[in-house]
Amino acid sequence: MRYSSKQIEPYGLDGHSLNAERLIDDVFGCPNGKVFFLAGGTQTNMVFISSALKNHEGVISTVSGHINVHETSAIEGGGNKVLTVNGKNGKIYPEDIDMVMAKHIDMHMTKPKMVYISNSTEIGTIYTKEELLALRKKCDEHKLYLYMDGARLGAAITSKENDVLPCLIGQVCDAFYVGGTKNGLLLGEALVINNKALARDFRYVIKNKGAMLAKDYLLGIEFEEAFKDGLYFEIAKKTNDMAQYLKEGMRALKIDVEDSPTNQLFVALEKELALRIVKEFQTEIWEDKGDKLVIRFVTSFLTEKEDVDDLLAFLKKAQ
Amino acid sequence: MRYSSKQIEPYGLDGHSLNAERLIDDVFGCPNGKVFFLAGGTQTNMVFISSALKNHEGVISTVSGHINVHETSAIEGGGNKVLTVNGKNGKIYPEDIDMVMAKHIDMHMTKPKMVYISNSTEIGTIYTKEELLALRKKCDEHKLYLYMDGARLGAAITSKENDVLPCLIGQVCDAFYVGGTKNGLLLGEALVINNKALARDFRYVIKNKGAMLAKDYLLGIEFEEAFKDGLYFEIAKKTNDMAQYLKEGMRALKIDVEDSPTNQLFVALEKELALRIVKEFQTEIWEDKGDKLVIRFVTSFLTEKEDVDDLLAFLKKAQ
Amino acid sequence: MRYSSKQIEPYGLDGHSLNAERLIDDVFGCPNGKVFFLAGGTQTNMVFISSALKNHEGVISTVSGHINVHETSAIEGGGNKVLTVNGKNGKIYPEDIDMVMAKHIDMHMTKPKMVYISNSTEIGTIYTKEELLALRKKCDEHKLYLYMDGARLGAAITSKENDVLPCLIGQVCDAFYVGGTKNGLLLGEALVINNKALARDFRYVIKNKGAMLAKDYLLGIEFEEAFKDGLYFEIAKKTNDMAQYLKEGMRALKIDVEDSPTNQLFVALEKELALRIVKEFQTEIWEDKGDKLVIRFVTSFLTEKEDVDDLLAFLKKAQ
Amino acid sequence: MRYSSKQIEPYGLDGHSLNAERLIDDVFGCPNGKVFFLAGGTQTNMVFISSALKNHEGVISTVSGHINVHETSAIEGGGNKVLTVNGKNGKIYPEDIDMVMAKHIDMHMTKPKMVYISNSTEIGTIYTKEELLALRKKCDEHKLYLYMDGARLGAAITSKENDVLPCLIGQVCDAFYVGGTKNGLLLGEALVINNKALARDFRYVIKNKGAMLAKDYLLGIEFEEAFKDGLYFEIAKKTNDMAQYLKEGMRALKIDVEDSPTNQLFVALEKELALRIVKEFQTEIWEDKGDKLVIRFVTSFLTEKEDVDDLLAFLKKAQ
Repeated sequence: MRYSSKQIEPYGLDGHSLNAERLIDDVFGCPNGKVFFLAGGTQTNMVFISSALKNHEGVISTVSGHINVHETSAIEGGGNKVLTVNGKNGKIYPEDIDMVMAKHIDMHMTKPKMVYISNSTEIGTIYTKEELLALRKKCDEHKLYLYMDGARLGAAITSKENDVLPCLIGQVCDAFYVGGTKNGLLLGEALVINNKALARDFRYVIKNKGAMLAKDYLLGIEFEEAFKDGLYFEIAKKTNDMAQYLKEGMRALKIDVEDSPTNQLFVALEKELALRIVKEFQTEIWEDKGDKLVIRFVTSFLTEKEDVDDLLAFLKKAQ
Repeated sequence: MRYSSKQIEPYGLDGHSLNAERLIDDVFGCPNGKVFFLAGGTQTNMVFISSALKNHEGVISTVSGHINVHETSAIEGGGNKVLTVNGKNGKIYPEDIDMVMAKHIDMHMTKPKMVYISNSTEIGTIYTKEELLALRKKCDEHKLYLYMDGARLGAAITSKENDVLPCLIGQVCDAFYVGGTKNGLLLGEALVINNKALARDFRYVIKNKGAMLAKDYLLGIEFEEAFKDGLYFEIAKKTNDMAQYLKEGMRALKIDVEDSPTNQLFVALEKELALRIVKEFQTEIWEDKGDKLVIRFVTSFLTEKEDVDDLLAFLKKAQ
Repeated sequence: MRYSSKQIEPYGLDGHSLNAERLIDDVFGCPNGKVFFLAGGTQTNMVFISSALKNHEGVISTVSGHINVHETSAIEGGGNKVLTVNGKNGKIYPEDIDMVMAKHIDMHMTKPKMVYISNSTEIGTIYTKEELLALRKKCDEHKLYLYMDGARLGAAITSKENDVLPCLIGQVCDAFYVGGTKNGLLLGEALVINNKALARDFRYVIKNKGAMLAKDYLLGIEFEEAFKDGLYFEIAKKTNDMAQYLKEGMRALKIDVEDSPTNQLFVALEKELALRIVKEFQTEIWEDKGDKLVIRFVTSFLTEKEDVDDLLAFLKKAQ
Repeated sequence: MRYSSKQIEPYGLDGHSLNAERLIDDVFGCPNGKVFFLAGGTQTNMVFISSALKNHEGVISTVSGHINVHETSAIEGGGNKVLTVNGKNGKIYPEDIDMVMAKHIDMHMTKPKMVYISNSTEIGTIYTKEELLALRKKCDEHKLYLYMDGARLGAAITSKENDVLPCLIGQVCDAFYVGGTKNGLLLGEALVINNKALARDFRYVIKNKGAMLAKDYLLGIEFEEAFKDGLYFEIAKKTNDMAQYLKEGMRALKIDVEDSPTNQLFVALEKELALRIVKEFQTEIWEDKGDKLVIRFVTSFLTEKEDVDDLLAFLKKAQ
């Protein structure tokens, strides 16, 4: 029962968590960023957004944004409206923001206060350096926070088409999170808050939302391991590589695959074949195009070459 | 200090409120409807929707719906997501509902649970009997509540194009409100809840949301007066008539006015003229069409023939 | 339809409201206070507290405080915990605050951030100048907001025992409200926010909570009338006077009345007599003391001398 | 990427979770109970209570209840008021409930709707069979839900003084949770909902509150292991045994230890000694009694005999 015997300090105040914070701040270029470990992506988005915004303030997102589509009203449950824009290729552009601002002009309408982007996006695209800098500038102009959902940040950074250095993320975002769950960790996301005002009392906020783990060091240990030797990006790179390997394999079979810089592939297939694939492989129907169905393939840290070969063999046989 | 001297029973339990409830239930065809008087439209929408829905349940509305555009996130502040559809002419159709249902299929997405319609709509259009019956049928199919925002219900019912008897409203809606504020009352809306389960503990809900007035009988008295001799519809009819009178006057001047069955008119005018009008008359720019600006004129219970003539004279002179 | 004809500017931006704001700021000694008119007391408390505090922050109140007992969880519905202290005579003292602060020391507990006091209190007592200054000092020490519920502020200020000048209220409170509903107005409370940071975007907040009236000028006109010639305090004084007149009358009848500086009297009576009174007069059982029942008499702006005489005659006859 | 290769079904729908559900339902006597795995105790309390209650409904708890003291307003953040009673020895009795019901009688006050008890309680006491049956009866009388916080349920069940069979828990409670975090698991609590109406759409609720883990099977696996061979109770029993061993050791040293049936011990010690202990051992000051300080010792699954001996040696030396 003496201190420093078998037990680690609980509630995120342990050495592993502090070390992971330092590593993450270094990589992402925010020496004074405060890092908080949370269990999942929806939780991270909800806890952060509802803490940063008051109820009359809204967050701008693409129609396809995770907070708009796949969080079962978690953001609205926390009291905030998601203000949607169409964007392009899953991304938001400065002109989208201008349009929202032009429409929300008085106290009878939600006051836009934050821009939410995902990188890589929900459809696998990535932001360029130029695009991120332009968004930051536009956010400054309208006094908006810029928040990046990094559930798939590893995939974005390790994409062959990426020109964004990790350290740029910390420079342009008021806050962002580094996704663990979708990048091979058991659970956990690392939320980094750069904007000091938004980090005030944040452990209270986490507890208030029921999001604090007693043995929070579990998350600290995971991220420490992920970042001390670059394992985080290794996993992400392999995941991307498998998607590219699958893409090339399908193109060799003359299958129509949309171009994608990361680990999500969208493939239009004949209805019958598509339904057979969905039944046997872990994938899902993305869109019904009438004569064809678009299938979404997502490779993960578990996907091996043999898995891809197996799928390609199946596709070849089916032709 | 004896009872039944000068003071009226507070908190909505007085004779005027009970009488107004009976009158409204009679007119709108819901003999067992529970009527609750609230101060304004946004409050009514927020209190009812947040009471009827749990946080994971959402309400379907047109993009132009008042709850989506003009309530400063009140619905989201109450915890619920507004699921938008484009609809047509400000109205929702069964196929819009089917589309929302087809997209929201599992626990990772908001569960649609209510359809919100406005009658007349935010752009002055009205629902037909056939349309309302079709919506009711579609709501039954998907187990959705049907809720009508009647801020402008008087204008809808007294429109020359209307084929909806007031008593149909009570038959098709789980709940609806009869707007007072926009129909000449000092303040107040009468929320009618037909679906018994949704009325449970509703006075507690009103108090919990800070929406209970001590001297609630003020609202009861207003609605008693409005409905005991048909004054409510008289006011609405006059309002519509003034809009039609304005429309005809403008058409005589060859001005391009969109057709409208109620008290809102949308008129495309040369930019310079439009800006002069907005400066001198109570109106607003609705849309910028490049070469022209669309102005929205709303007649009210205060609009007299001379007011319209004054505006028409101004327009004539400007030509 | 021209401007400045019959219609008054809606949503609280009219001349009456602005004039009332100036009058109230003058009386209560806060030249830069922002005044917002709301419909009722619970609404005012809920809208202000939920706007000033984040969800992990709590508000200190006596056990008997209106926000703790008579608001149907409106404060909690807005997301905030009421941290109760016993206090003394319905009032909070600096040592109560110290006790709460000593217990709430880390992120696993609610963070106290506001002190809520009522003046006069829920049992008719009033704060002295010395007590208010001591509370302000204690709040500064612990970085707490001081908020006064003035539903009965008129009764406090016009009490014969009062030594608090109205202008002290504005000096010691971050915010307070001047009660209209309990002081003869049809409806309405005037919330005064002195702490500039707490007034930011407050009209958005009001709208977001469904608390904005379209014809808000109604409240502006009421308060303008109440404060332009001192009517507000005249009404309050008369109310207090009637209570004192009743107290003296009862004491002449040897009835045991607790001392009270304002318009609430607590009287212990034999059970049978008490029940007869509750049946015939507008009053309520406050406490069951076994052999006796404590009855609470509240005089109002409607109470006339004859009403009191009528009650005294009844009591005399019953002896 | 084929199904049933390396990946387990995500989001709590896997075989381990289903098996754990069956095991827990068997042990606790609720064959139709729905089991949901959540990450921590505060989260479980908040998600369940805010789902079961509407905002005007409150939950009755002892003043010392975890939801009242140690959850940073999570329950209030979810919209619900905690209605406190003093209780006795950390426990609630039927007469406490009657008192709350007698005070909350109309729409101006929170409507009591749930009773929250902890077993073992926050101070280590446990409920008897008779007490639980009496609470169930009282809850039925007033139409209240009975919910048990079982963060320390293992300690309660394996206490030498316990007369409650596990299967009684399922019979008397509408819902309860079986604590993992405080009983040796990495993370996780198993919420069991017996009352079918309260389980409706509960996965949506979990997701809406940000409480769903993608790899939820982690919790399923933990609870499967904990319950398949009785490991859960073994751990709890050892924990209790260590506390009893410590108690006896301290009594042998004539130290004044309060009696406790589980793994929490409250010991009054001289100030100076108490402070030395708090510095060297994992414990905390519970209460300042002026001349003495009360220290709270909590044994855990990590506490070994040598740890206790070490502490006892320290105490002996200090005498």
